[in-house]
Amino acid sequence: MSENIKKRPIYIKIKDEDNVAITVDKVLEGSQVMEGITAKQDIPQGHKIALCDIPAGGNIIRYGVTLGYAINDIRQGDWINEDMLSLPTPPSVDNMKWGVDIRTDLPKPERTTWEGYRNADGFAGTRNLLGIVTTVQCVAGVLNAAVKRIKDELLPQYPNVDGVVSVTHAYGCGVAINAPEAKVPIRQIANMCKHPNFGGELMVVGLGCEKLTPDRITDRLGSDTVLILQDYKGFGAQVEAIMALAETKLKRLNQRKRETLPLSDLMIGMQCGGSDAFSGITANSAAGYASDLLVSGGATVLFSEVTEVRDGVYLLGERTVDEPTCRKLAEEMKWYDNYLELGGADRSANPTPGNKKGGLSNIVEKAMGSIAKSGTSPIVEVLSPGERPSKKGLIYAATPASDIVCGPCQLASGITLQVFMTGRGTPYGLEAAPVVKVSSRTDLKEMWPDLIDIDAGTIATGNATIPEVGTQLFHFILDVASGKKESWAEHWKLYNDMCFFNPAPIT
Amino acid sequence: MSENIKKRPIYIKIKDEDNVAITVDKVLEGSQVMEGITAKQDIPQGHKIALCDIPAGGNIIRYGVTLGYAINDIRQGDWINEDMLSLPTPPSVDNMKWGVDIRTDLPKPERTTWEGYRNADGFAGTRNLLGIVTTVQCVAGVLNAAVKRIKDELLPQYPNVDGVVSVTHAYGCGVAINAPEAKVPIRQIANMCKHPNFGGELMVVGLGCEKLTPDRITDRLGSDTVLILQDYKGFGAQVEAIMALAETKLKRLNQRKRETLPLSDLMIGMQCGGSDAFSGITANSAAGYASDLLVSGGATVLFSEVTEVRDGVYLLGERTVDEPTCRKLAEEMKWYDNYLELGGADRSANPTPGNKKGGLSNIVEKAMGSIAKSGTSPIVEVLSPGERPSKKGLIYAATPASDIVCGPCQLASGITLQVFMTGRGTPYGLEAAPVVKVSSRTDLKEMWPDLIDIDAGTIATGNATIPEVGTQLFHFILDVASGKKESWAEHWKLYNDMCFFNPAPIT
Repeated sequence: MSENIKKRPIYIKIKDEDNVAITVDKVLEGSQVMEGITAKQDIPQGHKIALCDIPAGGNIIRYGVTLGYAINDIRQGDWINEDMLSLPTPPSVDNMKWGVDIRTDLPKPERTTWEGYRNADGFAGTRNLLGIVTTVQCVAGVLNAAVKRIKDELLPQYPNVDGVVSVTHAYGCGVAINAPEAKVPIRQIANMCKHPNFGGELMVVGLGCEKLTPDRITDRLGSDTVLILQDYKGFGAQVEAIMALAETKLKRLNQRKRETLPLSDLMIGMQCGGSDAFSGITANSAAGYASDLLVSGGATVLFSEVTEVRDGVYLLGERTVDEPTCRKLAEEMKWYDNYLELGGADRSANPTPGNKKGGLSNIVEKAMGSIAKSGTSPIVEVLSPGERPSKKGLIYAATPASDIVCGPCQLASGITLQVFMTGRGTPYGLEAAPVVKVSSRTDLKEMWPDLIDIDAGTIATGNATIPEVGTQLFHFILDVASGKKESWAEHWKLYNDMCFFNPAPIT
Repeated sequence: MSENIKKRPIYIKIKDEDNVAITVDKVLEGSQVMEGITAKQDIPQGHKIALCDIPAGGNIIRYGVTLGYAINDIRQGDWINEDMLSLPTPPSVDNMKWGVDIRTDLPKPERTTWEGYRNADGFAGTRNLLGIVTTVQCVAGVLNAAVKRIKDELLPQYPNVDGVVSVTHAYGCGVAINAPEAKVPIRQIANMCKHPNFGGELMVVGLGCEKLTPDRITDRLGSDTVLILQDYKGFGAQVEAIMALAETKLKRLNQRKRETLPLSDLMIGMQCGGSDAFSGITANSAAGYASDLLVSGGATVLFSEVTEVRDGVYLLGERTVDEPTCRKLAEEMKWYDNYLELGGADRSANPTPGNKKGGLSNIVEKAMGSIAKSGTSPIVEVLSPGERPSKKGLIYAATPASDIVCGPCQLASGITLQVFMTGRGTPYGLEAAPVVKVSSRTDLKEMWPDLIDIDAGTIATGNATIPEVGTQLFHFILDVASGKKESWAEHWKLYNDMCFFNPAPIT
């Protein structure tokens, strides 16, 4: 980070060896950016300026890392956009080093407890929800009608229950359920049955002729859990049966109370979406600091998004605590490389047009920023998409980078709150767990005051430090987890669909 | 069909050369099924009984077609279940004959007009809907909140508008948008923008940083059509903007009126799901007869589901009107064979457990029943998934067999009503077009009186003929299309998600 933090800087240069910097605000052609360097064109906010001449083929360096190679000669002061550099080959995941970057002096949190709903086993809940998991999309219409009535007619009678979540999805039938990768969506749906925010009072609604039979997702197959629509005499009877079963669950859920719990009972997820060139140095860095505080206090933090760590994966490998964890990290990367290749794509399919508008030239630059949200803690475990952890601490949960798929994957792993960093801005939310939104730029917080919870843009403008915003975020996470505050996405009930990851074919 | 129609039969044998028949009701061990043939075990309703001894390796024949080969010796009177036969190799699609089974004496319909909403170009609408197509799942939360308010606050003021349909979906970002198969989901979403039931008053809601930019799905890019959430100051302003634009559209839509139109302005789709062994001889046969009446009267009828025609595709090839149409049929089959193979699956992934419970042993048997819904008309065109037709008449629209994916694909092709045949029963429905449900068994109609519109089970019990039920269905289709009747799925507002087909990877 440049020296001139605490007064509004013009540019941000991250490492000494960088030959580019990003602009804090839009810079006009001819204006001086730093001593001896004048912008040769108008440069949009957050975009890169060349700090020296870079010949064609030369390395373009930010974060101390080669983002790519200059396609043509670049002059000092030039705006470097995404068309001016070529993508380097991705780093090999074979023979990554492990355990060589294990930090032991993590910052200590001021708070070590929170208020949650204790579960018989595993992590505690941040909300007290009636969860209804479906085996197949066919039931969605009937279930939606029933859930509307449950919310309108029953829920008001059970004030200690926070909501009703129907986990409807596109899977369940018309799928190649014995294909090798079918385990991925099935694992996610099965693990949603165990979600900590559902308090053990599970309902499963199936149709009766689908491929995803209830026994594939739960071993609780009694009539106090599973309801099959084909067993009931038509729509009216189906809705009544769902409501009757829901009421028995609501009665039990209504008796649950929050308790003071150690941070080790909390598991949250980190994700970013609509990123820009500030994301890595503001929002994701603050999230990384909050993550360090949480992990240091005993909590479990998941971070994800394979294509967005792929180009810096060796940095994560060095932080894994043992060889098997490092090897699983490599395996998840290879699996995704192969998955993309089979589909005729590669990691260059990420980033998005919005990322590019925000100054992110390619996936290397996006990855370096994305990894920042993991903070500096050791990585104790690596999960396949939707797997539940067996350890506590910082965990890499492999998922697609797609926001709307990463969310359901992390939910399946059991997160009970998600922190979402955004540069361009997205109203994304989840019904099964509150989502806290952090902006990378103050402009976005000002544009979306009723959607962004925490502004990390103050880090770029010199008004706050990474530890300050990180600590603010840490407290906000615990307040939302404890039910003392609600995030904007939760307040407005902004819920995205449960777009589970299905890499297997449909039939 | 057996001779004993018009009195409740015990069994149904379809072709003289068949060596199996299916039971109309459950048959008990020891009871006589036909002269000289006694059931050797209890046989469930709709399951197959061997009409003669079949040695191991011998052909098991129904519909005059080899369903598979006996794995062990089968005795006369044995119940033949799905574990007793092996799957034959699929028929080659190379060198299929075309134009050799062109029927010219189709039954003539009694009605040749209906009441629809005429569109400036193309097919007419069956409903007058405000359609809001999204570019990305990220906007779903905000749009759902806005649509709830539009339905509650605005729609009642515009009584000639039937509803508001937000086409939210899992596509749009975090996808490999330049992968070879990305054209499939993009085509579906783009064609939804032109849906006949949306009356040309399109709204497109995007986020602003997604990969699926509005220009990829429509050329109507003005502010009277496209609304980008990132352009608005937060949630409140976004909802207000959506509502304001919606109101201008509702005003115009409210002025539309139904007109008497020829059948050539109507396009419907046929689909089956949760099929059983009766489907092919009752519900699908009746649908086929209705299809013949419609096509003979000038209407356009789509039928679909690649894996469910694959094993009888040569029968469709013979009905194609020219060589290019037959070739495209072959190409769609090959594409799907390859798609399944890449995912480590094959056509045996279909049928479902419910199909098997219903007596369908394998995909050959399911396919022979599935094809029946296409009636006997010539096939004038073959469409890739979600393509819009350029001809009128009977059209094969290649889609996955998955009900919830076939529906959105056919909607994208422009159907304004879908007929859905079911044996096991599903509450499936679509918001953008009414869905008419036909049961293959009377038991199902009795079990689900408020979900099944037409019972074709009377064909199996000898109480009605295929032309009788087909004609009843034809009239019901036109009455629902004309807004004179509503189907049960429409009445209860049973809407499945828009699960567009995306064979490309996500990132």
